[in-house]
Amino acid sequence: MLVLPILATPALAQDGNERRATGEAALKRITGSDGRAVVDALGDMAPELGEWIVDFAYGDVFARPGLSDAKRELATVAALTALGNARPQLEVHIGGALNVGCSPREIVEVILQMAVYSGFPSALNGISAARSVFEARGVKVGEK
Amino acid sequence: MLVLPILATPALAQDGNERRATGEAALKRITGSDGRAVVDALGDMAPELGEWIVDFAYGDVFARPGLSDAKRELATVAALTALGNARPQLEVHIGGALNVGCSPREIVEVILQMAVYSGFPSALNGISAARSVFEARGVKVGEK
Amino acid sequence: MLVLPILATPALAQDGNERRATGEAALKRITGSDGRAVVDALGDMAPELGEWIVDFAYGDVFARPGLSDAKRELATVAALTALGNARPQLEVHIGGALNVGCSPREIVEVILQMAVYSGFPSALNGISAARSVFEARGVKVGEK
Amino acid sequence: MLVLPILATPALAQDGNERRATGEAALKRITGSDGRAVVDALGDMAPELGEWIVDFAYGDVFARPGLSDAKRELATVAALTALGNARPQLEVHIGGALNVGCSPREIVEVILQMAVYSGFPSALNGISAARSVFEARGVKVGEK
Amino acid sequence: MLVLPILATPALAQDGNERRATGEAALKRITGSDGRAVVDALGDMAPELGEWIVDFAYGDVFARPGLSDAKRELATVAALTALGNARPQLEVHIGGALNVGCSPREIVEVILQMAVYSGFPSALNGISAARSVFEARGVKVGEK
Amino acid sequence: MLVLPILATPALAQDGNERRATGEAALKRITGSDGRAVVDALGDMAPELGEWIVDFAYGDVFARPGLSDAKRELATVAALTALGNARPQLEVHIGGALNVGCSPREIVEVILQMAVYSGFPSALNGISAARSVFEARGVKVGEK
Repeated sequence: MLVLPILATPALAQDGNERRATGEAALKRITGSDGRAVVDALGDMAPELGEWIVDFAYGDVFARPGLSDAKRELATVAALTALGNARPQLEVHIGGALNVGCSPREIVEVILQMAVYSGFPSALNGISAARSVFEARGVKVGEK
Repeated sequence: MLVLPILATPALAQDGNERRATGEAALKRITGSDGRAVVDALGDMAPELGEWIVDFAYGDVFARPGLSDAKRELATVAALTALGNARPQLEVHIGGALNVGCSPREIVEVILQMAVYSGFPSALNGISAARSVFEARGVKVGEK
Repeated sequence: MLVLPILATPALAQDGNERRATGEAALKRITGSDGRAVVDALGDMAPELGEWIVDFAYGDVFARPGLSDAKRELATVAALTALGNARPQLEVHIGGALNVGCSPREIVEVILQMAVYSGFPSALNGISAARSVFEARGVKVGEK
Repeated sequence: MLVLPILATPALAQDGNERRATGEAALKRITGSDGRAVVDALGDMAPELGEWIVDFAYGDVFARPGLSDAKRELATVAALTALGNARPQLEVHIGGALNVGCSPREIVEVILQMAVYSGFPSALNGISAARSVFEARGVKVGEK
Repeated sequence: MLVLPILATPALAQDGNERRATGEAALKRITGSDGRAVVDALGDMAPELGEWIVDFAYGDVFARPGLSDAKRELATVAALTALGNARPQLEVHIGGALNVGCSPREIVEVILQMAVYSGFPSALNGISAARSVFEARGVKVGEK
Repeated sequence: MLVLPILATPALAQDGNERRATGEAALKRITGSDGRAVVDALGDMAPELGEWIVDFAYGDVFARPGLSDAKRELATVAALTALGNARPQLEVHIGGALNVGCSPREIVEVILQMAVYSGFPSALNGISAARSVFEARGVKVGEK
């Protein structure tokens, strides 16, 4: 598919209201109130980054139909564990994985798997992040 | 569960034959012949690394029951896309994702999502890896 | 500034046509035809990523008034040199830096500086990328 | 230009006194007292690292004429935001960017741009670093 | 060397008891009680990761004869300093390097060398980790 | 040790001739002709980076007495394997490790160990780099 000239772009992104509404809904469904807190905290300093999170990250990307919320969150937990330099965001998405129906077991399994792909330190630090989130929520890790 | 002293370790890892058998089966189921090729190519130089791949990465980690093959492979594709420095392995696991039943659409969606978590360059390079694998397999990306 | 509810969002992103137009203009101004080629090459596989590049990366982010094109491109060259895993994109943005008026000297200086912040290998590989771009364009590095 | 044998090296680095003087001046001009504190804190453990910071990082690299202090600091802020694993140094250089005349707006714009090149988590964590520095200095982010 | 079928695998890994015993001994010899604490802390959440540390990381990898403990620990300190995102593990291995007979001087030299290969920020943060460990142990850095 | 004012700097770096001589000698001893080739290839584009490699990386850092050449090269091989984004430099230093007396076995062991600290992909790609160097030199990996 080619990108068509401006005057004839049937595949243009949704208009602003639609992206905002879609994004707000996805942000809430996936991150509960954690994502809202992140966006609001950007307050006076960088409100645009908060808008991009809602409109682009959640409105344009996360809300797309081709991949379930559960798979999206597990993929995000994997990536942030592997990167090892984004602890706050990893905690938000471990919580998000729980919110969308991933079991604590599934979340732990994804992090454990990163011992193979990005090394044991990354997996240890990912488990530490999961512990913080699970303890705050009173969640226990079962067999499934 | 505490790690018990050696003389009383009921939870010890499987014995060598079991781990090898489990690993070989998982390696084949997930990577087809690609993983075998990687292990064999380690030849005279580092056969131990090949054994660890079979016994540990696949036998101990990948074959665990708490997370489906499909979710494991999507998580691995996400992590390797985010890391951006493991193209050969990313291609193996994009192929692995197809082998275990992920659709090309799901694989592309995971890579696209990395535009948010590790940046557009990582997503672009991940799409490039997926293109190589899909073209080699005559696979097309559909709606689902 | 708080993010207001949908029904009263005076700060909503531009509508689709505006973002597309802004993005296309910035993409051309900064990357010449290189960015167009990247977007077009996403073809059937991931046209959405191409749209996000135009609408978000260039329309929403790059075209913002608070930082000059020259400073934006030098910052991008620095970041991609430091990351060391995005050679194709680094080459596009070294070209982009030339397009927006940065001198070859300025570009080389930014890359050299990364020897301090991300190490000599990253700087060496960045210089290699700059060499490819400069040779293709017949550009020489002067004193300024 | 070839590197000539020792006996005929017209392009030798400045002698020790010159590099030290140049470095001390640049360190002060760019980092205020923050850089001095970093160097001094290396105290008994690694004074050589402090000397290399002054003589090499600032004397040989940062003080070079081909790129303005402002562009150097914005490039450094970009790279350290993208790397995401050097928070203390990122804060020093956000402060350095202010010291050499970059506006808070320009600094925020560079960090926001990293949402595209190294992902939203890196940009969020960069904004967090900028917040710490700006609050400590009573700085507000304006339009320019 | 090809990986032979299960029924004829003379090169199979040691059986479980051997790997566990080898691993426990290496863990203790190298990390003192620090490694034991890491393994135990994985408690209810991820005991498998603790077992993999003992059996694989120490039993299969670290205990191998072809490289001395001292060289193994210096290599690990170098890698974790360069990665810059694994501070807890870097501290464990700085301690491990001391345990196996590396001098504080050798450890500092490895970290300083990372200023060249992964940049000054990584070296500064590595020195900070070393300071924590040395102070806790009352260790001073001498000439050798 | 405090950094003293310019007028009384007994701990100043060596003067230019000394650093250059020390650096050239270390460059040759450790990298054979490979390092020379890297420095020379910086030619017209970035001769300063070549000078910094000789004077700083080798003259000031690598030639320091507190750590043997063998340990320095093994540490560098470990770090560059872990980083995974500096293949050309990793090859130079695998060669350097051979030049200073490390056995092929020791080099392979360091790379294998990175499977634990930075993941299997990094180790696989490091083995690939070692294979290139060993084959070019007709080197075989023995038991020690």
